[in-house]
Amino acid sequence: MNLRIPGPTPVPTEVAEAGAAEMINHRGPEFAELIARTTDGVRKVFQTENDILTLTASGTGGMEAAVSCHVNPGEKVLIATVGVFGKRFVDITRAYGGEPVELAFEFGTSADPNRIDQALDENPDIRTLLVTHNETSTGVTNKQLPQIAEVARKHDCLIIVDAISSLSSIPVPVDEWGLDVVVSGSQKGWMTGPGLVFVSCSARAWEKQAHTTTPRFYLDLQKHKDYLENGQTPATPAVNLFFQLDRALGMMFEEGIDNIYDRHRTLAQMTRDGVRGLGLDLFAEEGSESDTVTAIRVPDDVDGIEMLKVAREEFGAVFAGGQGPMRGQIIRFGHLGYVTEEHVRDGLRSLEATLERVGHAVPNRA
Amino acid sequence: MNLRIPGPTPVPTEVAEAGAAEMINHRGPEFAELIARTTDGVRKVFQTENDILTLTASGTGGMEAAVSCHVNPGEKVLIATVGVFGKRFVDITRAYGGEPVELAFEFGTSADPNRIDQALDENPDIRTLLVTHNETSTGVTNKQLPQIAEVARKHDCLIIVDAISSLSSIPVPVDEWGLDVVVSGSQKGWMTGPGLVFVSCSARAWEKQAHTTTPRFYLDLQKHKDYLENGQTPATPAVNLFFQLDRALGMMFEEGIDNIYDRHRTLAQMTRDGVRGLGLDLFAEEGSESDTVTAIRVPDDVDGIEMLKVAREEFGAVFAGGQGPMRGQIIRFGHLGYVTEEHVRDGLRSLEATLERVGHAVPNRA
Repeated sequence: MNLRIPGPTPVPTEVAEAGAAEMINHRGPEFAELIARTTDGVRKVFQTENDILTLTASGTGGMEAAVSCHVNPGEKVLIATVGVFGKRFVDITRAYGGEPVELAFEFGTSADPNRIDQALDENPDIRTLLVTHNETSTGVTNKQLPQIAEVARKHDCLIIVDAISSLSSIPVPVDEWGLDVVVSGSQKGWMTGPGLVFVSCSARAWEKQAHTTTPRFYLDLQKHKDYLENGQTPATPAVNLFFQLDRALGMMFEEGIDNIYDRHRTLAQMTRDGVRGLGLDLFAEEGSESDTVTAIRVPDDVDGIEMLKVAREEFGAVFAGGQGPMRGQIIRFGHLGYVTEEHVRDGLRSLEATLERVGHAVPNRA
Repeated sequence: MNLRIPGPTPVPTEVAEAGAAEMINHRGPEFAELIARTTDGVRKVFQTENDILTLTASGTGGMEAAVSCHVNPGEKVLIATVGVFGKRFVDITRAYGGEPVELAFEFGTSADPNRIDQALDENPDIRTLLVTHNETSTGVTNKQLPQIAEVARKHDCLIIVDAISSLSSIPVPVDEWGLDVVVSGSQKGWMTGPGLVFVSCSARAWEKQAHTTTPRFYLDLQKHKDYLENGQTPATPAVNLFFQLDRALGMMFEEGIDNIYDRHRTLAQMTRDGVRGLGLDLFAEEGSESDTVTAIRVPDDVDGIEMLKVAREEFGAVFAGGQGPMRGQIIRFGHLGYVTEEHVRDGLRSLEATLERVGHAVPNRA
């Protein structure tokens, strides 16, 4: 199968096999060396001097840690949303008793720093801004994240960023952009199975945490920091996934992080060109298209759910459908992590064959 | 290395390799089949008709789910503790705004149903009882759990049980004993890597959940139940660990669950006999010894921390030390999951060699 969803992404054989290594004591010296090495590696990719905590949870668990550790009960926070995962920040904030002020940008578009600036002007009591960097549900990257971070700083706001599906595939220089809390997930560009989530915290973030009373235990970041000093995690970590991550980081540094960014840029462009060549429209507005996932509008004469089924069963390509209000409306083509030109070319061929199979006229590509 | 800690336990090669299978879509039909199969298997081992939810988290995450989904802010709950993990229930309850009434039994002893009965008599407003079945930190099993459950029922209390390190190795017939919420962890008797935790919920538990306002999101059990109806999990699950679990369950049913219980009973007895044969004392009082982990008192003339180091570095046996107040005072010898007579015999030999190496006189065993 050509797994072309935006995560979990294909795990290279050598990474998957590294995960099958003999089990070790999570409170012993081997694990201490392992987590020290993976934490250093992850920190390099985050381009930060901040603390990096690795939690045994999926991306959503990392988002919850970011909220429950930094947002007080009754605290108003601004959440700039451009899709389903932005709205997940809203739901988590509400679940934990925060008061989300949602600044919703239309699905398919990206967040406008000027409108965020204005919203913060109108809500001078807000001190926390949450934003998605790469919105997996719409194929949009908030490319003006550096400007958004400047706006946050101007208003003395902590900025919390969901970079789950971008960081490691698209540059997110955490310190250069001044991002306080950043979340990324193992099952995306990191070429590792799902179940680990990375969270970076700035000095400002730790300061805020010390004054946050929201309940938390398993996902508490301070506890992870305390245990990390002894090469441990508060509870038993997913050791096999640490084994995988260790090997995956090795592969990433062998390839070179800048080469990884180039590869993702090139393959994303190839995907977009190929999709347009099939006469299809992109869901993301021009200039906001993500380099990790391409959202494709399903043509009016085609059933989007049926397309996914045909692509998988007849042509061996696994795409993702639309989530929430976009169900049946879009198809999402992932091109992140362990992905090559051949994977993309195969994916495009399967897409074309699927369109023909469901009776949609594909333009002659001469 | 002979990994003789009470979890994570050794993962059989075929299980570890099953975890390296090709990644799949967590929202596709393959995963739906996989989680249906593992859920059925886990339910059989739980001996229950109740719902089984599988969370991507370690055991502590499952304990937190049990608390945050069932204990309201300000609600008084009785927690019968016999060690560090019982006290973790107290900490989690407190973190989430509940009011724990701790009934602490001395470390090394087990919980007395009569004293629980009395405590519930004295606190007629309590409607929730939390208890550890197998206390990994002291090597004690609360063998009177069925009687404790009866007491809970008599007082119209929901009973929440941490069976993380027992269920699958020691019989815990959930329905027969009438346990409302039961937690068990993949890295214990299940022969699977750490990162999955199973929680069973009775009808009474769901009823209580519907009226619990404590904040929760990632670990919310109702959300897991809703998604499971479509063969999914709310967030991306640790797919590789589901692959492992699937194979491990296959091995467990091949061996036969009753044979697994017998094996654990026999190997635990062999461990205890061997330890006593070395002139060492058990930490658990007679009759309360666990069949998954044996806690051994460190002789007065020996440094317990040094013993662990020598056993590992010179004799290839990895034991666990004491936690909290028991640090340096005990050594814990795990015998659960993928464990054979040879593993136990090797462990005992390493223990003897370690004692001799650190200068402790071992009695002549004629």
